[in-house]
Amino acid sequence: MLGSTHGTLTTDSRRARVIACGEQPAPAVHGRPAATDDLDVSGRPLYAGVPDLDRFFRPESVAVVGASDAEGRPNTGITRQLLAWAERVGARLHPVHPTRESVFGLPCVPSVAELPDQVDLAVLLVSDPLPVIEQLAETKVRFAVAFASGFAETGAVGVAAQARLADAVQRSGLRSGLRLLGPNTNLNAFEEFRTDLDGPAIALITQSGHQGRPVFTLQELGIRVSHWAPTGNEADLESADFISYFSEQPEVGAIACYVEGLKDGRSFLLAADRAARRGVPVVAVKVGRTETGVRTAASHTGKLTGADAVVDAAMRQYGVVRVDGLDELQDTAALLARARPPSADGVAVYSISGGTGAHFSDLATAAGLRLPALSPAKQAELHQWIPEYLDVTNPIDNGGHPVGDWRGRKIIDAILADPAVGVLICPITGPFPPMSDKLARDLVDAAEETDKLVCVVWGSPVGTEPAYRETLLGSSRVATFRTFANCITAVRAHLEHARFTASYRSPFDEAPRTPSPSCRKAQALMRPGSRLSEHAAKQLLRAYGIRVPREQLVTSAAASVRAAGLVGYPVVMKASGARLAHKTELGLVKIGLTSASQVRDAYRELTDIARYEDVSLDGVLVCQMVEPGVEMVVGVTHDDLFGPTVTVGLGGVLVEVLRDTAVRVPPFGEDQARSMLDELRGRALLDGVRGRPPADLDALVEVILRVQRMALELDTELSELDINPLMVLPRGQGAVALDALASCR
Amino acid sequence: MLGSTHGTLTTDSRRARVIACGEQPAPAVHGRPAATDDLDVSGRPLYAGVPDLDRFFRPESVAVVGASDAEGRPNTGITRQLLAWAERVGARLHPVHPTRESVFGLPCVPSVAELPDQVDLAVLLVSDPLPVIEQLAETKVRFAVAFASGFAETGAVGVAAQARLADAVQRSGLRSGLRLLGPNTNLNAFEEFRTDLDGPAIALITQSGHQGRPVFTLQELGIRVSHWAPTGNEADLESADFISYFSEQPEVGAIACYVEGLKDGRSFLLAADRAARRGVPVVAVKVGRTETGVRTAASHTGKLTGADAVVDAAMRQYGVVRVDGLDELQDTAALLARARPPSADGVAVYSISGGTGAHFSDLATAAGLRLPALSPAKQAELHQWIPEYLDVTNPIDNGGHPVGDWRGRKIIDAILADPAVGVLICPITGPFPPMSDKLARDLVDAAEETDKLVCVVWGSPVGTEPAYRETLLGSSRVATFRTFANCITAVRAHLEHARFTASYRSPFDEAPRTPSPSCRKAQALMRPGSRLSEHAAKQLLRAYGIRVPREQLVTSAAASVRAAGLVGYPVVMKASGARLAHKTELGLVKIGLTSASQVRDAYRELTDIARYEDVSLDGVLVCQMVEPGVEMVVGVTHDDLFGPTVTVGLGGVLVEVLRDTAVRVPPFGEDQARSMLDELRGRALLDGVRGRPPADLDALVEVILRVQRMALELDTELSELDINPLMVLPRGQGAVALDALASCR
Repeated sequence: MLGSTHGTLTTDSRRARVIACGEQPAPAVHGRPAATDDLDVSGRPLYAGVPDLDRFFRPESVAVVGASDAEGRPNTGITRQLLAWAERVGARLHPVHPTRESVFGLPCVPSVAELPDQVDLAVLLVSDPLPVIEQLAETKVRFAVAFASGFAETGAVGVAAQARLADAVQRSGLRSGLRLLGPNTNLNAFEEFRTDLDGPAIALITQSGHQGRPVFTLQELGIRVSHWAPTGNEADLESADFISYFSEQPEVGAIACYVEGLKDGRSFLLAADRAARRGVPVVAVKVGRTETGVRTAASHTGKLTGADAVVDAAMRQYGVVRVDGLDELQDTAALLARARPPSADGVAVYSISGGTGAHFSDLATAAGLRLPALSPAKQAELHQWIPEYLDVTNPIDNGGHPVGDWRGRKIIDAILADPAVGVLICPITGPFPPMSDKLARDLVDAAEETDKLVCVVWGSPVGTEPAYRETLLGSSRVATFRTFANCITAVRAHLEHARFTASYRSPFDEAPRTPSPSCRKAQALMRPGSRLSEHAAKQLLRAYGIRVPREQLVTSAAASVRAAGLVGYPVVMKASGARLAHKTELGLVKIGLTSASQVRDAYRELTDIARYEDVSLDGVLVCQMVEPGVEMVVGVTHDDLFGPTVTVGLGGVLVEVLRDTAVRVPPFGEDQARSMLDELRGRALLDGVRGRPPADLDALVEVILRVQRMALELDTELSELDINPLMVLPRGQGAVALDALASCR
Repeated sequence: MLGSTHGTLTTDSRRARVIACGEQPAPAVHGRPAATDDLDVSGRPLYAGVPDLDRFFRPESVAVVGASDAEGRPNTGITRQLLAWAERVGARLHPVHPTRESVFGLPCVPSVAELPDQVDLAVLLVSDPLPVIEQLAETKVRFAVAFASGFAETGAVGVAAQARLADAVQRSGLRSGLRLLGPNTNLNAFEEFRTDLDGPAIALITQSGHQGRPVFTLQELGIRVSHWAPTGNEADLESADFISYFSEQPEVGAIACYVEGLKDGRSFLLAADRAARRGVPVVAVKVGRTETGVRTAASHTGKLTGADAVVDAAMRQYGVVRVDGLDELQDTAALLARARPPSADGVAVYSISGGTGAHFSDLATAAGLRLPALSPAKQAELHQWIPEYLDVTNPIDNGGHPVGDWRGRKIIDAILADPAVGVLICPITGPFPPMSDKLARDLVDAAEETDKLVCVVWGSPVGTEPAYRETLLGSSRVATFRTFANCITAVRAHLEHARFTASYRSPFDEAPRTPSPSCRKAQALMRPGSRLSEHAAKQLLRAYGIRVPREQLVTSAAASVRAAGLVGYPVVMKASGARLAHKTELGLVKIGLTSASQVRDAYRELTDIARYEDVSLDGVLVCQMVEPGVEMVVGVTHDDLFGPTVTVGLGGVLVEVLRDTAVRVPPFGEDQARSMLDELRGRALLDGVRGRPPADLDALVEVILRVQRMALELDTELSELDINPLMVLPRGQGAVALDALASCR
């Protein structure tokens, strides 16, 4: 019930954010009051409630504000559609109009104030919903939908109008529990859904009606769709709310999203976390791979798209399957909604053509699917029905003829009985009714009697063949595709999601809630609005237990010689200053100094160069020389959507060019820190190449996690951190930050 | 006519290969006698004739050997199909059977010897075609087709049987001009093609009947298909012959291929070159991206798949569009067959939904398509019909309503009239008949009146809507797709192919035919069966004008000091021996030696290590120390399909891990050598990073071309060459090979 999860919110709990080491306005925590233990150390919520949307999707009574039955008015068509929908879901409809007596024979009330006591949903067909929202605050209406456009999608004036609307909803909501869908949304939630389809359904969330249509239309191919949430500008209810709600509906097998931008990064993560905990797959198209996409998406619904690599990482962290095309969205969501958890990740490819088997296997293997060679015993079994000269290792080529008679079904059953096989894929590229019709029938029948996943690719470009339209699409147990690529994408997503779900541990359960002892030490080092010197940045790292070389900051040649003695020869000397970057290029680093005289000379040279280059120094660092290892970079950057993010990459000039990095959005655990390393193309360097010893991965992972902690605890103070290089020594020897750059807010 | 281009071949001309600097058996040169000036310096042909296949595809008389009309015999069905086909193409059919009087009412002859004088095509429905081929040698039959399987696709015994068959065809061919299609082929060439479709056609070549079916079936969607060549095992006629032939047929707009393996690399290149010269696009699926694909393809038609990166490069060199899926093959071939050359490469994206425009533009831009912003004047023009608040920069969002009335066509025409726009793409993701039907009609009408490319994506998964089936597929001027991805793939291929064709110069016209003066010098250095020492390998490079450091090979400490004096301090010293690899790891390289005593010590140390590591040296190299630059690798490796290939990559440990290389198949020109560098992910290193000067690209390109020359001239002597590193100095200063490894055959 909405009242219990949402109506008790207070202004404080929706806006306040308890900040451990700083202060910053807080995002809303929907659904239940925020307590201190619902926030992580950065003040971001660790919990989001699920709005109870039952009465939104299945209301008992609906008000239509601005209802019309006058010929030629746009609202008339909408009213008619709402009437039909209300009838289907069994809701009473109440037209609201200031002057009309009745609309389509239903008695009108002049304003929302005159509505009967219990109205679940008010559909606002007015160009300015703000006054109506304010009136609704006095009622017990639970949900409003605003179709009007002209808000954040139109620029600054619209952004302000939307903010006023959001504010009004929030104020109303505090009194009456009102939630708003829109503005700039449409009728998609009130479409006619097929009720005759079986099995788990797709629930659909879109930020564009036109873009959701293909998934909705899947119903014509026999795929069940249970809900459609067109979220529009998300002044109040956002995509995340629907993800949370849908992931708790028993009939929902998967959630399909078309997303242009996110309203709030954290609320998206919390919703994705809820879906991940419940094992409900979320499949999403997310616009914003390019600047063009970012610009046009902004002009469409006025939302931030976020840095694409960060969005991509965030989605992967929570098992959200990101796809590029609407066709992939349809096919992947349909498969993930309906497939049961796989018993094995082995894929058997079965075809009536050696060419088809070769081609499909080539693409499937390239995409990372595993095609286990069938055992000699299984192959012998198959050769009872398939001629000896045909290859049945996997792919299994039956040469065609056996599918036409009783052997066809035997072969399919024998493959499905193999414990190494979790998925059977049968690509049928050419429709040849004497074979393909029987094959389709056998596959459909066999799929009824197994828990394993049976997939068919119907490769004909025509798609009107009865074997496809009737036999295959008539089955809710066979997953039917039109292209090899989409089948492979969907099956891979299914297997990966199953693996993900099986090992998922929510990072929110383990996220730090209180500052570590490091935090106070670190805060003392911060210099608001400035960049820290190398020396100060390293002290910051040391505060968080990250190893740095022994070093001393000196301001005279004599002191440098004394420092070298304390640090221990050989030493490295570097100019140190808050505004100093590219020290190596400027000649401001001297390495391998082995004597007092070299140190003295180096001091003079460094200060000379600094004078010549007109850079101001706070001194010269005399540092312990660290033995060679693998040079990495570890850093923190701030993302508009998600806040601080942690990046790791290979160091050095070469990789500066190749940009070989991996990023994660906090909070994340050790498993994610390790998986970052696996994403690096140059990962092999860490494992040791050309006889070099493997690097200390544990130490590297520990640094990543400590940097994450720092990023969270110093969220309001630290705008950027860049450890470059972090020298990762051979296994067991740790990792040392040789240089670091830190900028304070 | 076949006789004039093929019948005059002699045994010598089909097998002999004139070798400039060595000897090696030659591939066949089809179609005209090979003369010395038809071979490049490696002895590979520079020309391939085009077999005249007119009478294969449109014969006047056809013999069916093994024809049958007995109930239940497989040959009966085939004979029936051949009869129907013969009737369609207007050919007389002659059944051949040793015992029957007649088949389907046509009089039989007992053997091919009894056939009438002029038979164009003999279809062999016999399990062993060899004896028939031998008999055909005595006739004037021009073409034979063998369906029998059990040849190279089945292993060693089959390979031998196929060799005997190929030999018999060749011997027959020398007398009668006979050419064979097959064995292990099928009836695809004799299918029923639609004759009512207009416009340029797709000609289809496949190595699997089932895999060709979807392209053939495109005819049901209104796409014209003119030919289908199912090449089977290619004992004689191969895919390349059909590419050459199809590229000369006026009705063929594009050639679509499904290829598992190539019979001969050079004949494929020559055919692709012919298509490139004529501007005829070749679109190909080529199996073999993975080991699984290679293995299963081999078991299907018994052909070599080739190293995938090399096949990929070879295709790109000749403008062959490689795609992965059969759906991409269909869509890309259909577009390339029918689209006219683009007037501009600017793409305008036009939609009835801002979301669709944002999404499509995001994917299109990410794929490298260029969406120019429309001029302010053009935008103002569009805003006559499209509300002001909608974005018409490009993508152009009309908000929906204008498509429903007279404005719809105005908008389309205005976009098409923009000279910056060469391609108009309209993605329609949701069918909404009041809008989408009118939009489809307007697009079809507008496409009739422009030379520009008009594309539609019909995104509904159903595909039975009249606007799609009738309006869009009924147009031969609109290219209709079902997915964003395939539309983008095809349009990109179209624009790239147009650019490729416009600037194409055949490398065969400029390929070296006679050995350079370097060749004899280099041959004197070769040591058959051995690896050359570093010193000898560098002499080889020097013979080809590639710069190496000044260096001397010495065998005593005293000599090393004298050598250092001659070479000039500082020097590098390296152990030198034919079997020596990983010198740096073994400590067998000393750099930056600045004095006689350092040189003397280094000599002793190197020889000590060599003794300790038990490696035999031919001496120690005292080399000029070269200033730093960008370290590259340039090499030659031998590919099973294509012979020598030239590779360039970034040097150093890091890139050894990342395998950042590009490869080309000779012959290639300077343009290709330059484009290799553009393929390197670390390309920016050559342009100068972190303030380093740009590298001498001209010198690097010159080295690549000289290495190519060496690879061709020493093809029979040199099995592998690896220059690592090639130090590319700053612009204007050249490139120096610091180390090299060369293996002789």
